Amino acid sequence: MKFICKGHGAWCMVYYLCLKYQPVMTDPSTICAISTPPGTGGIALIRISGEKALEIADLIFRSNRPGIKLLEQSPGTLWLGKIDTEDQVLDEVVVSLFRAPHSYTGEDVVEISCHGSLYIQQQLLQLLVEKGARLARPGEFTQRAFLNGKMDLSQAEAVADLIASTTAASHKIALHQMRGIFSEEIRRLREELLKFTALIELELDFSEEDVEFADRKALRELVDKIEQMIRRLVDSFRLGNAIKNGIPVAIVGETNVGKSTLLNALLNEEKAIVSDIHGTTRDVIEDVVNIHGTAFRFFDTAGIRETSDEIETIGIERTFSKLRQAEIVLLVVDLTYPAPPLLEMIEKIRKHIDNQHLIIVANKADKQKNNTADQLKSFTLRPNEDLVFIAAKGKHNLDQLIEKMQETLAVNKLGANDIVVSNVRHYEALKHALEAIQRVQSGLDTAISGDFLSQDIRECLHYLSDIIGEVTNHEVLGYIFKHFCIGK
Amino acid sequence: MKFICKGHGAWCMVYYLCLKYQPVMTDPSTICAISTPPGTGGIALIRISGEKALEIADLIFRSNRPGIKLLEQSPGTLWLGKIDTEDQVLDEVVVSLFRAPHSYTGEDVVEISCHGSLYIQQQLLQLLVEKGARLARPGEFTQRAFLNGKMDLSQAEAVADLIASTTAASHKIALHQMRGIFSEEIRRLREELLKFTALIELELDFSEEDVEFADRKALRELVDKIEQMIRRLVDSFRLGNAIKNGIPVAIVGETNVGKSTLLNALLNEEKAIVSDIHGTTRDVIEDVVNIHGTAFRFFDTAGIRETSDEIETIGIERTFSKLRQAEIVLLVVDLTYPAPPLLEMIEKIRKHIDNQHLIIVANKADKQKNNTADQLKSFTLRPNEDLVFIAAKGKHNLDQLIEKMQETLAVNKLGANDIVVSNVRHYEALKHALEAIQRVQSGLDTAISGDFLSQDIRECLHYLSDIIGEVTNHEVLGYIFKHFCIGK
Repeated sequence: MKFICKGHGAWCMVYYLCLKYQPVMTDPSTICAISTPPGTGGIALIRISGEKALEIADLIFRSNRPGIKLLEQSPGTLWLGKIDTEDQVLDEVVVSLFRAPHSYTGEDVVEISCHGSLYIQQQLLQLLVEKGARLARPGEFTQRAFLNGKMDLSQAEAVADLIASTTAASHKIALHQMRGIFSEEIRRLREELLKFTALIELELDFSEEDVEFADRKALRELVDKIEQMIRRLVDSFRLGNAIKNGIPVAIVGETNVGKSTLLNALLNEEKAIVSDIHGTTRDVIEDVVNIHGTAFRFFDTAGIRETSDEIETIGIERTFSKLRQAEIVLLVVDLTYPAPPLLEMIEKIRKHIDNQHLIIVANKADKQKNNTADQLKSFTLRPNEDLVFIAAKGKHNLDQLIEKMQETLAVNKLGANDIVVSNVRHYEALKHALEAIQRVQSGLDTAISGDFLSQDIRECLHYLSDIIGEVTNHEVLGYIFKHFCIGK
Repeated sequence: MKFICKGHGAWCMVYYLCLKYQPVMTDPSTICAISTPPGTGGIALIRISGEKALEIADLIFRSNRPGIKLLEQSPGTLWLGKIDTEDQVLDEVVVSLFRAPHSYTGEDVVEISCHGSLYIQQQLLQLLVEKGARLARPGEFTQRAFLNGKMDLSQAEAVADLIASTTAASHKIALHQMRGIFSEEIRRLREELLKFTALIELELDFSEEDVEFADRKALRELVDKIEQMIRRLVDSFRLGNAIKNGIPVAIVGETNVGKSTLLNALLNEEKAIVSDIHGTTRDVIEDVVNIHGTAFRFFDTAGIRETSDEIETIGIERTFSKLRQAEIVLLVVDLTYPAPPLLEMIEKIRKHIDNQHLIIVANKADKQKNNTADQLKSFTLRPNEDLVFIAAKGKHNLDQLIEKMQETLAVNKLGANDIVVSNVRHYEALKHALEAIQRVQSGLDTAISGDFLSQDIRECLHYLSDIIGEVTNHEVLGYIFKHFCIGK
């Protein structure tokens, strides 16, 4: 047995991975769904995909040019006509024709563009079902696109993210992922791993002869590079998640310094999408506001209202734990107060934040009487700190604050090809891959045998393959596509 | 002057009508809008129409086949590619190409089918505006279709009705109208009128010579025919309006006979569209329910709760006035009561209804103890009356009640080519036309001179032309199209 595998260890492993998961077959049925947003509008689009898409469409569509059969027409063409069954005309429509494999799903696809009344949409669907199509499940068109090799799994997942994105930043990440830039990185990682595997397996195959073929130093360098690549991706999730769900911003400060006024001013500043979403902690409902193309998720922290000598109580600890969840901390101080307690507060907050960006928001700049502002100005800021003077009530200088918030964001420094992980499933897989590769690292350190290393590499490979869906199963697909909207 | 008009009187009149209203010119600008329902979905469709539609699309669209320019492509084709400006890809899209005059608007049209995220939809619109298109006003695509002669005004109005229709019945009327069957009838009427006019004008031209050319008997027959045609259309509005807004059904009866139970049972019977709409009286909010493809609008009448001897009070009069607004009156009686007061109640209701269909709903059929049911059964019903035994609480026999309600409806007896007016603007115009033609009738009776007849005929013609938009003005168009959705 060993003999057969000689020299082919890496491929045996890939083969094993493919066997472990039963391949998911495409479904031969023809599916249909309303693909446009639910509701009434000028136009609605009904999509049909599958072997019989054209045949079924021909049963209900009568072209304005007599005698036209869609089955006989060239793909990439448009046809004007009526949805007509027996003596009843349902609507006047335009039909778009796509043929396998040159369609979204990779199958024959017909798109019927009808008048967007609820009645017509429902009747048309019903008609298609009567003629042999079946209602598509959420995301089933995209799932078919994946199964037919039109896109990999991470690209398919990006379709849902793209549709859900409401800001420039989240749109950018999703589009990136949909266009396969993330998948390329994963493939590159897999190639490096396979290269490494080949070396290790070679050693393994000849282990009986006690030969150590692989140059352990070269191996070490390679595995370090892989670990770095994976770690960078894992680390990017903090940003990716923040972009997807809104950059978490904590507003802290004593009571009556103008925290709520500031929050309201920021929420009103932009007439953009403002909505309530459930925070990750589930017990907190937060305000999300889209400012210049980035969603910010503002935390309500009402904690630091005790006098300074009580600041270390347990209740306050909760506020501080929230600070750690934030990407940006806005510390609001009141310029009508004398300087010393303000500086003291800044020092206290500093102790509780790690890598977050701290913006000291000096409020009531219009009402200052003493030299507090001057003393603040001469206060030495650290690299990840900023100081902004505002008057929240009069909305004075809010622009500068927003600018500072924007500047701190890594997303704005993202290059066209920088990769940011924003999908929890990918993040989890990458974390597992990272653990595995780190075990390989320490294995090399302790010079353990290739057998053990091989197992960890196999695991790392498995998690990476999972992301792009090279190996997959019904359960994973079911989980992924159930979050899609119907009709995509 | 008289001389010049000799023999051409009818055409002079038409010419005058055309001059009276300034022609509405098409707007050379290129317009764009989201045509699919608002919101997030799998796919959204952005429509561009106008002289520069293709040119503008070419500025932002990059086909997957390099070097493709939409301007150079054949109409009726589909193109896969990217929305791409400078270094930024916005989305991967499919573009449909239509060329004037073979498009919805009669102009060059490009439809961009993009991912249905709010962000992409907004950005794409913004991009089109940057490149020289302008945001379309509500209904502007259809308005252009009208102005470019793709459809007449009543057909254009039907597009909005078609989109708004939620039941089979309202859909049928709207589709009828959109397909031009109503317009044909109006054109036929106009032709008859012009025929009549020609005869009268001939008489008028020679009036100095005191000759009576037109055969007044033939004239009378023709005008009677026209009057009948118009009257039939005017009368159909009661049904058309009922179908469009829901067949008005009044549920009446004493308290505790099960009126509310019946209403709730009917509302729950169908898991169909149930919504609240403001009734025509504006102070009443009514329940509309779609039962087997017809919308019924149920009136809440809580009036008849006094004892029988107080039944003629002013408060009760309100309920009776509502009865007159109904198409169907459901009189609920309680079978556990003795028969005489029930029969008395039926007689009272009979006095207050005209042509409405009265359905006596004998409730609590499961609990009857005496011979009330038998006495009811032997009660003589009139042609427009029905008797149904139900048990509202147990939902027993509701089907039979619904069947009876359906049977009474003229809509179900409508032939494929029967014309029903459902548009208030058309109804008003037809009412005016009817008044004018009736003045012609009495003019003929009293043998008044052709001059006066001519003026009334002219008015009648004018109102009919108004309906199909042969003569029209900015104000009318503005009024009609402002009720459209954007993107259609």
